[in-house]
Amino acid sequence: MTGEFNLINKYFVDRQSQRKDVLLAAGDDCALVEMPENVSIAISTDTLVAGTHFLADAPAAWVAHKALASNLSDLAAMGATPAWVSLALTMPEPDESWLKPFCDAFFELADYFGVQLIGGDTTKGPLSITLTVQGFVPKERALRRNGAKIGDWVYVTGELGDSKAGLDVVLDSQCQSKPYADELLHRHFHATPRVLVGQAMLPYASSAIDISDGLISDVQHILKASQVGVSLDVDALPLSKELIQFVDDKRMAQQYALTSGEEYELCFTVPEEHKGVVDTATAHCGVQVTCIGQIRPQEQFELHASGELLDWPISGYDHFKET
Amino acid sequence: MTGEFNLINKYFVDRQSQRKDVLLAAGDDCALVEMPENVSIAISTDTLVAGTHFLADAPAAWVAHKALASNLSDLAAMGATPAWVSLALTMPEPDESWLKPFCDAFFELADYFGVQLIGGDTTKGPLSITLTVQGFVPKERALRRNGAKIGDWVYVTGELGDSKAGLDVVLDSQCQSKPYADELLHRHFHATPRVLVGQAMLPYASSAIDISDGLISDVQHILKASQVGVSLDVDALPLSKELIQFVDDKRMAQQYALTSGEEYELCFTVPEEHKGVVDTATAHCGVQVTCIGQIRPQEQFELHASGELLDWPISGYDHFKET
Repeated sequence: MTGEFNLINKYFVDRQSQRKDVLLAAGDDCALVEMPENVSIAISTDTLVAGTHFLADAPAAWVAHKALASNLSDLAAMGATPAWVSLALTMPEPDESWLKPFCDAFFELADYFGVQLIGGDTTKGPLSITLTVQGFVPKERALRRNGAKIGDWVYVTGELGDSKAGLDVVLDSQCQSKPYADELLHRHFHATPRVLVGQAMLPYASSAIDISDGLISDVQHILKASQVGVSLDVDALPLSKELIQFVDDKRMAQQYALTSGEEYELCFTVPEEHKGVVDTATAHCGVQVTCIGQIRPQEQFELHASGELLDWPISGYDHFKET
Repeated sequence: MTGEFNLINKYFVDRQSQRKDVLLAAGDDCALVEMPENVSIAISTDTLVAGTHFLADAPAAWVAHKALASNLSDLAAMGATPAWVSLALTMPEPDESWLKPFCDAFFELADYFGVQLIGGDTTKGPLSITLTVQGFVPKERALRRNGAKIGDWVYVTGELGDSKAGLDVVLDSQCQSKPYADELLHRHFHATPRVLVGQAMLPYASSAIDISDGLISDVQHILKASQVGVSLDVDALPLSKELIQFVDDKRMAQQYALTSGEEYELCFTVPEEHKGVVDTATAHCGVQVTCIGQIRPQEQFELHASGELLDWPISGYDHFKET
């Protein structure tokens, strides 16, 4: 066992990369940072709790990746460039066999996106992780949820539904023998925040959100904020071959794609006049983008497949559900 | 029971005061804020966990005050002006009878210091609160821990030791019948962050820290960062009459003052040439400041009382103690 301060130094302070805008990252009462001119700061906070967001025996590296990726995904959804992160880590004991892989994975992802850990807190208690990430976005240019207009096209990044299938594998041991169980489990914990897509779409998208609660639920946040409706083509939903084989039914895979939370893909809307540039603008981002529908007048919320209107009872994920 | 989003709206979003530099506080993937020119941002994160930092049945209003006050105290210790706060609240159930007093107390203190809640997360799990506060400090002027010089005078704000006595009352029911038990209990949960003192001392102090782990422990952070030592006059420690009567022994009260954590008073050092202005500079702050010692050469750490050197075995508080 080591003291709190030694623990912080060993795993967090000593291995910091240094951004030039970070004047002070640890070792004082606060971190001190400086800002470029003509930007706003985008700030997001997310908590992962053992037993709620991951099983207590989940590999520490997976938990670290998921915690940071989900936060970076919020920055991506605003089109922001990640800069700094604060980490509040609560754990029952200072378990170094857990901390080392946690930190290795955390810093691997942070370094990839040029994000510096600027401080936080280490406390004793039930395992949980709260991150506050901050990034820059050009003034008055952030991708908001409230800019979608009737006629805009609806896009998503990547493939949807895999995270829910991975969660099946976590929660139901019988699913471990299904096809691609390992790959989907990995996908559940190893989402890639779509930071590049968010930045690339800054000049073109009219609204954006990241898919954390499930496509259906998150799209509704855009609809509500923009006071519009939507028509989605279920047959257009991007599905992985792994998911289709795992659930062994294309319609079921589509339902997974519509409701799967913690995907950390982006959903964004693009006006007709920019539809032609989407593929080119995102070509360098290493992920496909797919048009899945169109914005409609308010109160209209339609799912289509094979030209027919679907009537699927679906809702998003909510920690404290209506009862 | 209400859904997560309703809960957030009811208790947090709808009662927000609006700072002009907050472009977007809730309802999107990130908060968006803007900065004044020529300032740095000071950022601090603290977590309070039920069972570690407070008993699970502690009044919610006390917990809220303590959580925010301890964070604002970190800003105060840098001389920063508080601006924004993010709140990550984890609770077993969305208990409105707990949330209402929590929010009332949280916003009372936030409003007093002009701090706006700009976002956060509400999750299900064991009760804990993580706050990230941010504030401004003029560029290159923040009060650091590393500026103390030999000969500088050591000051503290307020009276020390009361918080530890209040903790006695929390942890030992027999202490409830001691003199001033209620007052000291209140003091433990209702520290006043010394934001005004931090700002007032910006031009004059050579270093500063807030007393969260205990004076002895926190002074040592200044000594280590500044590579100096200290001589403290134990008889000069500011003690409340409540504490002296509670512990019924002046020497014991002094030991409380030296080791009491979670005081959220400031300890700062002032060069000889500014000693004359301390009282005037802090006159409007509503709290006494007391000179308790002087900075000495490195490796020198002395406690004096009545002209004699003391040999008290004392150390600070640490969540994961050396074993």
